[in-house]
Amino acid sequence: MSPQLSTRRNPWFRRFRDALLHHDQEIVLEGPKMVRDAIAAGWAPIAVAATADVNLDVPGRSKRFELSPELARSLADTDESQGVFALFQRPSAALDAILARRDSVIIALDEVQDPGNVGTIVRLAAAFDASGVLLLGACADPFGPKAIRASAGAVLAVPIAGMRRDELLDLARDRRLDLLAADMKGAAEPPPAAAAILLFGNEGAGVPAEFSAVARSIAIPTSGRVESLNVAAAAAILLAQSFHLRGETGTRP
Amino acid sequence: MSPQLSTRRNPWFRRFRDALLHHDQEIVLEGPKMVRDAIAAGWAPIAVAATADVNLDVPGRSKRFELSPELARSLADTDESQGVFALFQRPSAALDAILARRDSVIIALDEVQDPGNVGTIVRLAAAFDASGVLLLGACADPFGPKAIRASAGAVLAVPIAGMRRDELLDLARDRRLDLLAADMKGAAEPPPAAAAILLFGNEGAGVPAEFSAVARSIAIPTSGRVESLNVAAAAAILLAQSFHLRGETGTRP
Repeated sequence: MSPQLSTRRNPWFRRFRDALLHHDQEIVLEGPKMVRDAIAAGWAPIAVAATADVNLDVPGRSKRFELSPELARSLADTDESQGVFALFQRPSAALDAILARRDSVIIALDEVQDPGNVGTIVRLAAAFDASGVLLLGACADPFGPKAIRASAGAVLAVPIAGMRRDELLDLARDRRLDLLAADMKGAAEPPPAAAAILLFGNEGAGVPAEFSAVARSIAIPTSGRVESLNVAAAAAILLAQSFHLRGETGTRP
Repeated sequence: MSPQLSTRRNPWFRRFRDALLHHDQEIVLEGPKMVRDAIAAGWAPIAVAATADVNLDVPGRSKRFELSPELARSLADTDESQGVFALFQRPSAALDAILARRDSVIIALDEVQDPGNVGTIVRLAAAFDASGVLLLGACADPFGPKAIRASAGAVLAVPIAGMRRDELLDLARDRRLDLLAADMKGAAEPPPAAAAILLFGNEGAGVPAEFSAVARSIAIPTSGRVESLNVAAAAAILLAQSFHLRGETGTRP
């Protein structure tokens, strides 16, 4: 029998709710599929809260609570939660892990504001084996509920770190990483396969001017019937190409 | 001086609101950029409602209203509206326009339920010059506010039609169109350049079984670290490749 979570005053309920709202120390994965996948991949939740009807194998060191249907509805960000919530430590910044690899590309996002776009790009980073994701400026937090959902849980598996713009410029120079900016006005050339940073800008404003002296702009050829692509769609196309090029040139490990 | 829209009882206010809610006869584009782009592309709104501070050139045959800030807030789906709303006739089903072309691919969506995904794929159809978009089953309506926004206005320019699954199978057979389904378990082969239907399934369930006897499944090679890609990301990758192949093989007009 798991202890019950059935009042809003319960400190564990508050801890889940605060993690959903603020996600600064702890984060919440929602839904049976995402939680099962994370546990299967070896992540141990601090605590799992699920309604009585949910069948879930939880690691022994994770606390387990039975959640009342009313509190489940109150926590749920969408219907996909299906009464299942798992609390995890927020992953810490993983700059060293990102920089340890030169066999792939680093994704940098500058002021990408839609959490769905940030989460989708984290999922693409896992799908196409990018070294990690750097967040510049006021990006949406990849550990908020909407971004976690768009990432399909990949936020736990992909190294993510925040950085200032000037730090990114220093990093590119010091580590001799090519800095390429996705920009519809750039040259129609293939993306890099490795040892490079691939930079995507804000949904409306694009890549900021302060990168233009250093970054080379590359464009995805289109029909010309749209002004721009959605930033996650552009990332999908360039990251899939980059992954393909690594396979061809043998730079994949 | 434009007539004022300042009460909720005004029939024109109701007409805008009904089009935002139901979009079955008329649809609403929101935001100065999307409305200006549509007008510049030759579309004449039935009516434009904008707050007094907005400077906008509207075709002579379009009605023009000055919208009170309060009613603008009440209509707005997001901040991007910026007090600008344009009412258009809902485009009618454009199956003939879609079938008139054999020089590109037709996109078919089956039960794609997120309006952001449907709108993003319509924008990709314009970007990569697909013949059009067929909607099967209970797809999100491409003419709802969220889908229109994700399409960046491309819903006006891309031929879109609804269809039943059996009609799609008949169409593929009668017109000798290759039917290819995007599916992570499919063969890793390039997408078709032309004379084909490229089918994408529901975000969770994928392509339904009733297509499996006829459709060939094609997959996007990935690292294997994710189970699937977001449907709009998969569409971006395959449509960009298809567009590239048309350029190479000279099937583009």
